[in-house]
Amino acid sequence: MKVRILVSLKESVLDPQGQTVRNALHTLGYQAVRDVRQGKVFEIELEGLDRSEAEKIVPEIADRVLANPIIEKFSWEILEA
Amino acid sequence: MKVRILVSLKESVLDPQGQTVRNALHTLGYQAVRDVRQGKVFEIELEGLDRSEAEKIVPEIADRVLANPIIEKFSWEILEA
Repeated sequence: MKVRILVSLKESVLDPQGQTVRNALHTLGYQAVRDVRQGKVFEIELEGLDRSEAEKIVPEIADRVLANPIIEKFSWEILEA
Repeated sequence: MKVRILVSLKESVLDPQGQTVRNALHTLGYQAVRDVRQGKVFEIELEGLDRSEAEKIVPEIADRVLANPIIEKFSWEILEA
């Protein structure tokens, strides 16, 4: 099974990395860019798990290891069953 | 309009960051994790663009600024029209 986990800063947390990217895009002439938020994506291959086991383990992994729950939120989806 | 751009290493490129995460997960007892690939996600708000303009500009931004086309690939989608 293959899953994708997106980790991004909570809305209330400043994102200096994203702001730097936005400024760079403005400098290059992309004035249509109003805001940029940057995050991380993890694509994970899991072996020998069924859907309900994945639904238990993936949020646990995201919460314990991949994201910092103080400042980050995550979402996830199954890419391949 | 809000778009999401995913940037990840090409399949042929080693991902030491992802391997480190996989090893950490194994150490914590998540033996079902077979492989981890890590990438970046950008959520970008665009102002005053219609869909066809976005379809021109977003891949250009991804290719020029967000991804390194030598070792990375990207995909993107519209989150809000």
